[in-house]
Amino acid sequence: MRRALALAARGLGATSPNPVVGCVVLDARGEVAGEGFHQRAGGPHAEVHALRAAGERARGGTALVTLEPCDHTGRTGPCTRALLDAGIARVVYAVADPTPGASGGARRLREAGVEVVEGLLADEAAETNAAWLTAVRLGRPHVTWKYAATLDGRSAAADGTSRWITSAESRADVHRLRAESDAVLVGSGTARTDDPHLAVRGVEGAVQPLRVVVDTEARAVRPGARVLDGAAPTLVAVAEDAPAAAHLPEPLRLPRAGGGLDLTALLAALYARGVRAVLLEGGPTLAAAFLAAGAVDRVVGYLAPVLLGAGPTALADAGITTLGEAFRLRTTETVRLGNDLRITANLSPKEH
Amino acid sequence: MRRALALAARGLGATSPNPVVGCVVLDARGEVAGEGFHQRAGGPHAEVHALRAAGERARGGTALVTLEPCDHTGRTGPCTRALLDAGIARVVYAVADPTPGASGGARRLREAGVEVVEGLLADEAAETNAAWLTAVRLGRPHVTWKYAATLDGRSAAADGTSRWITSAESRADVHRLRAESDAVLVGSGTARTDDPHLAVRGVEGAVQPLRVVVDTEARAVRPGARVLDGAAPTLVAVAEDAPAAAHLPEPLRLPRAGGGLDLTALLAALYARGVRAVLLEGGPTLAAAFLAAGAVDRVVGYLAPVLLGAGPTALADAGITTLGEAFRLRTTETVRLGNDLRITANLSPKEH
Ligand SMILES: NC(=O)c1ccc[n+]([C@@H]2O[C@H](COP(=O)([O-])OP(=O)(O)OC[C@H]3O[C@@H](n4cnc5c(N)ncnc54)[C@H](OP(=O)(O)O)[C@@H]3O)[C@@H](O)[C@H]2O)c1
Ligand SMILES: NC(=O)c1ccc[n+]([C@@H]2O[C@H](COP(=O)([O-])OP(=O)(O)OC[C@H]3O[C@@H](n4cnc5c(N)ncnc54)[C@H](OP(=O)(O)O)[C@@H]3O)[C@@H](O)[C@H]2O)c1
Repeated sequence: MRRALALAARGLGATSPNPVVGCVVLDARGEVAGEGFHQRAGGPHAEVHALRAAGERARGGTALVTLEPCDHTGRTGPCTRALLDAGIARVVYAVADPTPGASGGARRLREAGVEVVEGLLADEAAETNAAWLTAVRLGRPHVTWKYAATLDGRSAAADGTSRWITSAESRADVHRLRAESDAVLVGSGTARTDDPHLAVRGVEGAVQPLRVVVDTEARAVRPGARVLDGAAPTLVAVAEDAPAAAHLPEPLRLPRAGGGLDLTALLAALYARGVRAVLLEGGPTLAAAFLAAGAVDRVVGYLAPVLLGAGPTALADAGITTLGEAFRLRTTETVRLGNDLRITANLSPKEH
Repeated sequence: MRRALALAARGLGATSPNPVVGCVVLDARGEVAGEGFHQRAGGPHAEVHALRAAGERARGGTALVTLEPCDHTGRTGPCTRALLDAGIARVVYAVADPTPGASGGARRLREAGVEVVEGLLADEAAETNAAWLTAVRLGRPHVTWKYAATLDGRSAAADGTSRWITSAESRADVHRLRAESDAVLVGSGTARTDDPHLAVRGVEGAVQPLRVVVDTEARAVRPGARVLDGAAPTLVAVAEDAPAAAHLPEPLRLPRAGGGLDLTALLAALYARGVRAVLLEGGPTLAAAFLAAGAVDRVVGYLAPVLLGAGPTALADAGITTLGEAFRLRTTETVRLGNDLRITANLSPKEH
């Protein structure tokens, strides 16, 4: 199952709106006969890849799958059918499929006489599929807020200089995060100051995420902005009543709310386009608005061993005035990246 | 030597103005015959403890010492003499003694026919004795700035609430840091707002550090302040011209400079009192002044997975306006403490 999880993770960022899934097929003697993972939406499911690789050796064997096999006919046939046709005797899966249309796979297999075991490495599997599971559960994309800051929480010096606070390793790691996401989001302030590119560089085989700029007045993304090049698709979200701009052919028009656009409407629109994993790359104002709206699920902070004592903070006012109201997270991982530290933490659902 | 280093570390906070030293004596067959560490200034040196434990088994044996054995007669006799008298054939030490009066031990031993090896686990030994080595080299105490903050660098919420940002594990760990220090320092702002106690609690066998409050006008430490109890010695540093206060019987009078007292004069006064390791516990203003003065050697940050988005920052303005001037540190350790993260980083000497 650990191998199946590693296979599944290779699909991160490429399978939306589907989950990532890995599968290992063992023959009747318990030896690995085939492996596979879901590579892209519309392509064969992990089970099908693994069964094809196993061929006749699958008969009487075991399929280890990170997610409950589906029982519905979408763009591909049901995996339950493929497993039964291949003569699989035993199916072990990690996490049940919460999608109404896709579930029932375990029951179908049991009814057909297959031994079915659920829950092996369920926590790890849920973590690998965190974005997709959250999205299915909440009906909106899973949102990871990524930021870079000094040990004293500054994202730039007093004069605005911020290149580079973090190390080359950290910056490369951000490209991996982007590659694992379906959309990368920034606010108009960041678009105006940094003119960021937001595409993935240096990650082999990466599917480029949708680049999204939240630009209420359609003024921050100017003609010639780097996000408008052809490196990846781009969507500029503007207000319903924002002026038309020739260089923004098909902006996403959204209602106004609070300090700009309605973020719930934004996430709904992205979800409708198949986006399940969003990487929010700031800035501080937009991140604060997402937090205040209960729309951040995970935080990834790149902390550089640097002290500034002045300059803009990584997070702007999110409406918290007293410690009892603070956003409290659960740290899931801390990793040294060169001289920096990457900390990953989840917001527990009760904070939402 | 690793064992000797562990022994040495047991003396941290108790040996000033002396270094911490650990010693393991092996008999002629290479078996452990005795162990010891320097427990307090004026008491026997590590070598003497270990030789006593080894007795006759030391003859023809090896002494592993974390610091070059001394060759001078202070409150105790020279260790070189003790090693020669015991018949030690080989001395292996980690780090040379930089003190003018104490060095020469290696030469003396060699002249007497003892085989002497230097440099085993030198880096680890230098780290264990970092405070003392820095103090001897710079002629002022080694300063560790400790702070607690959220992931976005806040040390309190907007309304001032800060209990508790960090976990119980982190707070207990601060008591260990205090126990390893000779003095614990806070500014008048912290004394006024928090009325901190600053003594060590919950660390077995700890020597209480000197509690120091930097209170220019002799106004922040009021009668009945918790630092004035008998739990540990206390020193209030005030300006030369500050009014006398009956509840502060013997304040340390210092010249004024910059935003308050002359910090160089403060450190010199502490050094003169035998203080080698200072733990600076804030607040943000005093920490910034120490950093700006090049008087911080090490930073220990307790980062809680909490986001506030508002409230005072962990570090106040230290005169840095652009990223090129930022204090850049070298991370030496990151440790998970419950849900928190402790990050330890050194300021390289060129930053001083
Ligand atoms: N260290 C890091 O990790 C990092 C990452 C990114 C950026 N930055 C820095 O952050 C700075 C820019 O940040 P910023 O805070 O000024 O701007 P920002 O967060 O990038 O964008 C904020 C803007 O987004 C627009 N917006 C639209 N809908 C919103 C909503 N519902 N809530 C809040 N805002 C909404 C608003 O302007 P309109 O309504 O007018 O469009 C708002 O002013 C730059 O200096 C950049 O370098 C740092
Ligand atoms: N999160 C943490 O780790 C942490 C730690 C400690 C404190 N805190 C919080 O920090 C707040 C207090 O911090 P603060 O910044 O207001 O005060 P502070 O840093 O504790 O003290 C600053 C004061 O020290 C005096 N001082 C004397 N000589 C100085 C010099 N050379 N340079 C600078 N200051 C000198 C000055 O006042 P005078 O000249 O008038 O004496 C100055 O205003 C409290 O709310 C406390 O809870 C947080």
